[in-house]
Amino acid sequence: MKKTEDKLRVIPLGGLEQIGMNMTAFEYGDSIIVVDCGMAFPEDDMFGVDLVIPDISYLEENQKKVRGFFITHGHEDHIGAIPYVLRKVNAPIYATKLTMGIIDHKLEEHNMQKSVRRKVVSYGTNVNAGAFHVEFIRTNHSIQDAAALAIYSPAGTIVHTGDFKVDYTPVFGDAIDLQRFAEIGKKGVLALMCDSTNAERPGFTPSERTVGRQFDNIFAEHTSTRIIIATFASNVDRVQQIINSANKYGRKVVVEGRSMVNIISTAIELGYINIPDNTLISVDELRNYPDDKTCIITTGSQGESMAALSRMANGSHKKIQIKPSDTIIFSSHPIPGNEKSVGKIINELYRKGTNVIFQDVHVSGHACEEDIKLIYSLVKPKYAIPVHGEYKHLKAQERIVSSLGYDADHRFILKSGDVLEFDRRGNAAVNGSVKTGAVMVDGLGVGDVGNIVLRDRQHLAEDGIIIVVLALDGRTGAILSGPDIVSRGFVYVRDAEDLMENARNVLEDRLDDLESQGIRDWSRIKSEVRSTLSEFVWKETQRDPMILPIIQEIDV
Amino acid sequence: MKKTEDKLRVIPLGGLEQIGMNMTAFEYGDSIIVVDCGMAFPEDDMFGVDLVIPDISYLEENQKKVRGFFITHGHEDHIGAIPYVLRKVNAPIYATKLTMGIIDHKLEEHNMQKSVRRKVVSYGTNVNAGAFHVEFIRTNHSIQDAAALAIYSPAGTIVHTGDFKVDYTPVFGDAIDLQRFAEIGKKGVLALMCDSTNAERPGFTPSERTVGRQFDNIFAEHTSTRIIIATFASNVDRVQQIINSANKYGRKVVVEGRSMVNIISTAIELGYINIPDNTLISVDELRNYPDDKTCIITTGSQGESMAALSRMANGSHKKIQIKPSDTIIFSSHPIPGNEKSVGKIINELYRKGTNVIFQDVHVSGHACEEDIKLIYSLVKPKYAIPVHGEYKHLKAQERIVSSLGYDADHRFILKSGDVLEFDRRGNAAVNGSVKTGAVMVDGLGVGDVGNIVLRDRQHLAEDGIIIVVLALDGRTGAILSGPDIVSRGFVYVRDAEDLMENARNVLEDRLDDLESQGIRDWSRIKSEVRSTLSEFVWKETQRDPMILPIIQEIDV
Repeated sequence: MKKTEDKLRVIPLGGLEQIGMNMTAFEYGDSIIVVDCGMAFPEDDMFGVDLVIPDISYLEENQKKVRGFFITHGHEDHIGAIPYVLRKVNAPIYATKLTMGIIDHKLEEHNMQKSVRRKVVSYGTNVNAGAFHVEFIRTNHSIQDAAALAIYSPAGTIVHTGDFKVDYTPVFGDAIDLQRFAEIGKKGVLALMCDSTNAERPGFTPSERTVGRQFDNIFAEHTSTRIIIATFASNVDRVQQIINSANKYGRKVVVEGRSMVNIISTAIELGYINIPDNTLISVDELRNYPDDKTCIITTGSQGESMAALSRMANGSHKKIQIKPSDTIIFSSHPIPGNEKSVGKIINELYRKGTNVIFQDVHVSGHACEEDIKLIYSLVKPKYAIPVHGEYKHLKAQERIVSSLGYDADHRFILKSGDVLEFDRRGNAAVNGSVKTGAVMVDGLGVGDVGNIVLRDRQHLAEDGIIIVVLALDGRTGAILSGPDIVSRGFVYVRDAEDLMENARNVLEDRLDDLESQGIRDWSRIKSEVRSTLSEFVWKETQRDPMILPIIQEIDV
Repeated sequence: MKKTEDKLRVIPLGGLEQIGMNMTAFEYGDSIIVVDCGMAFPEDDMFGVDLVIPDISYLEENQKKVRGFFITHGHEDHIGAIPYVLRKVNAPIYATKLTMGIIDHKLEEHNMQKSVRRKVVSYGTNVNAGAFHVEFIRTNHSIQDAAALAIYSPAGTIVHTGDFKVDYTPVFGDAIDLQRFAEIGKKGVLALMCDSTNAERPGFTPSERTVGRQFDNIFAEHTSTRIIIATFASNVDRVQQIINSANKYGRKVVVEGRSMVNIISTAIELGYINIPDNTLISVDELRNYPDDKTCIITTGSQGESMAALSRMANGSHKKIQIKPSDTIIFSSHPIPGNEKSVGKIINELYRKGTNVIFQDVHVSGHACEEDIKLIYSLVKPKYAIPVHGEYKHLKAQERIVSSLGYDADHRFILKSGDVLEFDRRGNAAVNGSVKTGAVMVDGLGVGDVGNIVLRDRQHLAEDGIIIVVLALDGRTGAILSGPDIVSRGFVYVRDAEDLMENARNVLEDRLDDLESQGIRDWSRIKSEVRSTLSEFVWKETQRDPMILPIIQEIDV
C-alpha cells in the first residue's frame, strides 16, 4: 500500500471525449479532490434525454477519501452535475464568490442547500484538503470570477487552467494573474492541464471590451428602432456592456429570459455588475417608453426553441412581440450543432421584417493558439496535458505544445477513466483505468435510460410501432379475439386501410396454420407474428417498424 | 380568359424556404415549363423520412399544359425529385449532356428509362416549348455542365442562373459565358432569378483551380504516407485535380463510394474527365502497391455514417481500413447541420493516429456578393428575384441588389406558391398563390407520412410508449384479463419492476371504481386509463410517454 500512497494520481472522469461533463479526480494516499462537476448536453440520437452527467462510481467507491469539490467557474459544463453528484458523494464545495452564487441557486432549485457545505474562496488563498493544498488563481473567461487551480501535492504541483482566456482589459475586475502563473512556474510545476477548446484557432482571442465598442457603433447607427440583443445568459460582462451602451444612448433596459434574470440578479446582489440608476425597467414598463428609448437583452441566442427570443419570434411570448421595425442582434456564435436552429430563428426574424445583425458582435471566452503558448511559457510544466474538448481539440493543443518542444514522453492525451500516475521522482505514466461513462438524466430518472431504452426510442422514431393483440383460450389455446392491429408513427391509418386489412389477413392465415399444426407455445406464436408481419410490411412499404405482439390468456 | 393568357406567371413550387427542393413553374397561356425538379434532405425532426419533394398539385391539375422540365445541373437538390414527379406529370426533360447522364442513371434505378423522354441540349441552342423558347447558357459550378436559362416568352425574357459561380479558369471546359449574359441583357431582360446561397459572403468565390494547387502542395509534403481524400461525389473537377496531383507524384488512384463511382463512370463515359493511362486501379489492386504510391478518393466528407469514409474509419469497410500512418484530407466544408457529424469522424480519425487535414482544401461552387453584382450588371434586369436558399440568403441578395439601385418595387422575395404575374407592359405583381408544400418520402411511401405520423414518431422518440391491454366480457363488461402493461422506450423494465407494479395497481383501483359505478363505455374506460396512468407516470418520473389503451372484447 505504501507504494500507491507515494504516487499522485490524476483521473479524468469526463470532459475528454466531448465539450462538457468536465470532472477530474486527483488522488494522493487517502485524499481525493475533484476539480469541476459538469454536465453535457445530450447527443442528437439521445432521444428524450435532458442532460448527461459523468459516471462517478470511482468516487462512490472511495467516498471517504473525497475531501472536496473545487469548481473553476459557473458554467453548466463545470457545475451542472453538482445536484446529482453531491447527492451521492457529499463533500464541501470550494469556489469563488460569483461561482458559488450560481451554485447556491442551483442547489436551492434542487432543495439541497442545507445538505451541502460550501466555502467561498478568494484568489491567492490556499485551501487545505487532506494531502493537497489548492490555490485559486485569477483568470478571464466569458463568465466572471473564473479561476485556474494550482494543486499542490507531496509529489509535486499541477496547474489546471479551467476554461480561460487572456484578457488584458477585462470589463469587470482584473486581468488574468499572469505573474502568479509565472511565480508558481518558477518554483517548478509537474504538469499543466490546459483548456483546448480554441486550440485549433490561430492567433490571440480579442478582449471582451472589443464587443463593447461594437455595441456603441450599433447603438449609434440605429437610433430610431427598438434594439433587442440575444446573448449567453451567464455572460454578465456582455450584459454590462450592453447596459453601458444603452445608458449612453438614453435607452431603458429590460432583461428577459429566466436563466439570464437569475444570473443577473445574483450578479447585482454580489456586486458583479454596475447598473446606473433608472436604467433597468421591468417588462411591464416597456409600454411606457417609445421603441427608440428601449433595449431588450434576452436569452435564446443559440436558437433554443423554448428560450425568450424564440417565444418572442413565434408570438408565444406573453409580454414581448417582435415588430418589423426592431433591430435584433445576436451577440454570440452558434455552438457546433446549433447552426441550423440559429439559422432558423434568423430566417423567422427576417420574415417578420426586422433587421438582424449576427456577425462580428461576439468574442470567444477561450484561449487561442498564441494564448496557450503564453501560459505554457509562464508555467513551464514538465508534462503537458490538454483538457476540455473533443479529441481534435486535444490534438490541436498537442501540436502546439509539440512546437514548444514537448516530446511524446512529456505530452499526455488522456481519455476519461485513465489513471495517470506521478511518482515522487516526477516520472509519469498511465497505469490502468477506472470505470467512467455517461449517465443519462431524463426527468427524475438518473441512469434509468440506458442503451436498450435508447435503442427502442431510436427504432420507434424511425418507423413507429405496430402492436398485435391476441386473446387466447387458456385451456385450448384457441383464438378468442384478434389479431387486432394498432399502429402509431407508422402510416396514417385512415389512408392505409387496405394495407392494414391485408396485414390482418396475412396474420390470420399464419395463425390458422399454427393452430392447425397444434402449435400453442406463446413465444413461438409471438415470434411468428413478428416475422410474418415484419416481412409483409417491408415488402409493402420498405419500412421496419417495431412489432410488438401481446397475448392475453383468458380462462373461460 | 384572354387576360390571364396575356400574362407571364412565375410560380416557385419549392426552394425558397430551404436549401433544396428547387422547382419553379413558368406559365404563359396554355404553356407551362418547369425549371429544376429537386429534393431536400429531411429536417432533424422529420424522423424516419428519407427525403422531401415539392408538392406538385398545381402541375398535376395543369398536366396538359406542361411542355417540359428544364434542368440546370445534376445535383440532387435540382434533380432528386424527378423519379417521383415524372411518374405523375410526364413531359420531356431537357438538360446538358453530363446532367442528362446523371438523370439517366437515376431513372434507370427507378426503372423509368423507357417512360420518360429526354433531350440533351447544347449551350446556345433554343428549345421550343409552347409559348416559350428556352436557351441554355454556360455557367460554372461545383459540377460540370451547369447552365443558366434564358426563358423567352411573349411577355419578356427571364434569366434564371441556376446554381452558379464565376470561374475564369475552370478545370474542365470554358468559363461562364459572360458575353452571352451581356448580350441577352442588352436586348432587355424582365427579371433575373439569381442564386442566393452565398449572398451573405463578401468578395468573390475563388477558382476551382486554387484547390488543385493546394493538392499539389499536400502531395509534395506527404510523400511517405498513403493519402485519402474525401470530397463530394459529384465534383468531377475536384476528382480530376486529385488525379492530376496523384499522377504527378507517381501515385495510383482508387475511387471508392457508390455515388462517386457512379458519377465518375458517367463522366469517363461522356468524356468529362481525363484520366492518364495506368493511374486508376481497383480497390482490390491496392495491396499490390506500397502506401506511399497510392491515393484513395472517397465519399463521406459530410460525416455521413453510411458513406465509405465512415465505414473505413469504424472498421466496417470490407476492403479498406484506416492505418495510423494515413494522411486524410477533407476537401469540403461541412454543410450547415453537418458540423457535428463531420467533427465526430475527424475525432475518430485522429484517435486512430492519422494525420487529418480539413482546412483550406475546398472552394465553394456558389457566387459570392461581388459575383452576384457582376451578373446583375451584365443582365441589368428590370426586376430582381433572389432564389435558392433560406430566407436569410434571399434577404442578403436583396441587400446586394438594393445597393445596385433596385428599389422595393423592383425586388421580389417570393415564397413557394406565390404567383408572380408580368403583364405585357412589364408590370409585375404577386397575384394569388397555388398549393405547395413538402411531401415526405419514407421507403416506398410518398406522402403517407404526414403531420400526425410525424408527431407520433416525435412523441415516441421523446419518452417511449406504454400499452395497456384489457380483455372485457362482451356481455357483462367484466374484466376477463388485464390490465397488462407493456412498455418500450420508457424505462428499463427489469430495473423498474416496482414502478410498473405500482402502475398496475393504480390502474386496477381505477378500473374497480369504474366497474362499481357501472361504467362500461369503452371510450370512457380508455380515456380514464390514459389519464390515470399519465398522471401516475408524470408524478413518479416526470416523463410523458405515449399511453395506448387497447380493449379486446371476448364473447364467452
